[in-house]
Amino acid sequence: MEKSRLESLLGIYKGGLIDDVLPFWLKHSLDHEYGGFMTCVDRDGSLLDTDKGGWQQGRAIWTYANMWNFHEQKPEYLDAAKLSMRFMDENMFDSDGRMFFQLTKDGKPIRKRRYTFTETFGAIASASFARATGNDFYADRARNLIDLILKYNNTPGLVEPKFTGVRPAKGIGTPMIMMATCQELRAALDTDEWDDLIMRCIDEIEKDFVKPELEVCMEQVSPEGEIIEHIDGQTLNPGHAIEASWFILHEARYRNNDKRLIDLGLNILNWMWARGIDKEFGGLMYFVGLNGKPVQEYWQDMKFWWPHNEAIIATLYAYAMTGEKKYAEMHQQVHDWAYKFFPDAEHGDWFGYLRRDGQISQPSKGNIFKGPFHLPRMQLMCWKLCEDMLAGKFDKVKFKD
Amino acid sequence: MEKSRLESLLGIYKGGLIDDVLPFWLKHSLDHEYGGFMTCVDRDGSLLDTDKGGWQQGRAIWTYANMWNFHEQKPEYLDAAKLSMRFMDENMFDSDGRMFFQLTKDGKPIRKRRYTFTETFGAIASASFARATGNDFYADRARNLIDLILKYNNTPGLVEPKFTGVRPAKGIGTPMIMMATCQELRAALDTDEWDDLIMRCIDEIEKDFVKPELEVCMEQVSPEGEIIEHIDGQTLNPGHAIEASWFILHEARYRNNDKRLIDLGLNILNWMWARGIDKEFGGLMYFVGLNGKPVQEYWQDMKFWWPHNEAIIATLYAYAMTGEKKYAEMHQQVHDWAYKFFPDAEHGDWFGYLRRDGQISQPSKGNIFKGPFHLPRMQLMCWKLCEDMLAGKFDKVKFKD
Repeated sequence: MEKSRLESLLGIYKGGLIDDVLPFWLKHSLDHEYGGFMTCVDRDGSLLDTDKGGWQQGRAIWTYANMWNFHEQKPEYLDAAKLSMRFMDENMFDSDGRMFFQLTKDGKPIRKRRYTFTETFGAIASASFARATGNDFYADRARNLIDLILKYNNTPGLVEPKFTGVRPAKGIGTPMIMMATCQELRAALDTDEWDDLIMRCIDEIEKDFVKPELEVCMEQVSPEGEIIEHIDGQTLNPGHAIEASWFILHEARYRNNDKRLIDLGLNILNWMWARGIDKEFGGLMYFVGLNGKPVQEYWQDMKFWWPHNEAIIATLYAYAMTGEKKYAEMHQQVHDWAYKFFPDAEHGDWFGYLRRDGQISQPSKGNIFKGPFHLPRMQLMCWKLCEDMLAGKFDKVKFKD
Repeated sequence: MEKSRLESLLGIYKGGLIDDVLPFWLKHSLDHEYGGFMTCVDRDGSLLDTDKGGWQQGRAIWTYANMWNFHEQKPEYLDAAKLSMRFMDENMFDSDGRMFFQLTKDGKPIRKRRYTFTETFGAIASASFARATGNDFYADRARNLIDLILKYNNTPGLVEPKFTGVRPAKGIGTPMIMMATCQELRAALDTDEWDDLIMRCIDEIEKDFVKPELEVCMEQVSPEGEIIEHIDGQTLNPGHAIEASWFILHEARYRNNDKRLIDLGLNILNWMWARGIDKEFGGLMYFVGLNGKPVQEYWQDMKFWWPHNEAIIATLYAYAMTGEKKYAEMHQQVHDWAYKFFPDAEHGDWFGYLRRDGQISQPSKGNIFKGPFHLPRMQLMCWKLCEDMLAGKFDKVKFKD
């Protein structure tokens, strides 16, 4: 990649983050009355619904506290994190220590889910907030949440199951989100106490979900890592696997460019890119079938913002770690497609939901699943990757001049 | 409508039912080993998954037994119903009398759901099977299932709720499916024992879901029938309400063209047609927002087969009951759009899932939600409506010659 291209990309990512995306969500979604983020906003940022998603509270607190901690100490970032942590403290924990998935504006719980993802996002929020404020209460809470998540993930029957025990299955989401959560906690709390847990997550992904003979990273397998010969088991989520691939590359970098981890991350990226890229319209398909057969989801060919965010990070990370032209080309391909269709030039931020051909399907900017997380994380990660490449911090990336 | 047009439509519906759709599913989905229908089939009918959906078992048994009872005594229809009722008898009932939502090929339960819709389809299957075979065991079972469904619908807390009690809501699906179920039981078992229950369902729809001041039939309201000022409460499902409209017209016809019911059915049809028709691409949108705002579902603009089936029936029924040219035009509009995009000329049956512009999104013919039900029911209803109009059984429909 030319130095000038990297400089230009750095400007796009950093400028988009600081001048567009972070202000958009501060302006439109912050609840100055009860605290918390109301992320159900229309294209222009106007409120569609006052409900607060549990995932988005944790994710948005992390986004702003993490910016404050490591990148840009704007008072409004810390203020937003403090205001919203108050909402989390006062409303989001149930008596069993678990967290609510959806709440009213004033903090009444609407729904709690079986899965512990609200808790993983609560953990990264708490850890980054602990660093931002120096308050150990939040560091302890992050640690306790990890323990609680592990207990729920490892204790069958603790929540009433959705399915009978006839065809047990497990998803890649559990180890990959645990890995990413621990990586964030490590950064925020300056500790290696979860390094073994991170490696166990990667080992589980490699052993049970990655199938080199099929060149695939599965989304769901049996508890023993076998492919399940039914539609749900054959349904691949390329963007999700590609997200896992850069978590693994990130770990490889932390571990002195561990070759086994680099190879694993690159394999997942290469295989799932080949399976997920839409050869007709460009961009990444949401779901694809293992053997090219239809999957059950009827909207499987839609283009969502987040798989494109993850693929932009993963390809740039792969380039940074290897210096290989191939990854620079993949990065340009997904960056160009995404920046052609997703950004909203009129009102800012990105659209979330496009039809297969890139036309807008649903124009709102947020809901209880979309808020300031995947896009600003991509902008931040890629800004920093560009900066580090330009600063010569990646051995494999060299410039002519 | 010209007599010749009605004759031509009759041929399309009857021919499509008897020569295309019913044979397609008998050929491709019937399990001659364990009984039951395997409806997860690809475009060409080849099997994608051997799992059996609970809804589809009951619906398909009803489709074939009902054909045998009233319209065409082909041995393969009764054979299919018998073979599949064996699967239902042996596998589909849990120890609490409830039915499973998804099962393996050999009948092991994968999932049971909170909602009692598998049971409603089990009831119509049992009633039509009782008539086809003269076996009162199945008539009793149909009656018992109605009682069980009522018990579950009317006893809060009998199943663990998905949401907290902070914002209680009810859906139109419960009274409308109960009404349609009782209508089918009445026809199969020659009894008026559920006539009051049917009227209570219609009364509930009129009182709680229909809002004349807004010209809308809501999909979800508070238990007291109030509009819920949050996204889920503002999400309309025009095809679903239009389905309810013809159930009500059907009841009006049974009750000597009851004017109040005709007006109610026509209002729902008119209002939800105006809200659901896609003025840009034609066809019916899946979800629309009450105030034109985005709904939370990102695939809301897709075109599904079943809302078009229901709109074809409802507009033809409205024409039959009123003789008004307007309904003939609406019928032609939705019939023409649907027949342009949904039928698969190469392999038979209809595609289920189109993008907004009518292009195919997901090419499979079936899954645990799509099988031989909405389409053959539409073909049957419309065949019979055309036949009855041509035979002079609808007072308001007159021909020039």
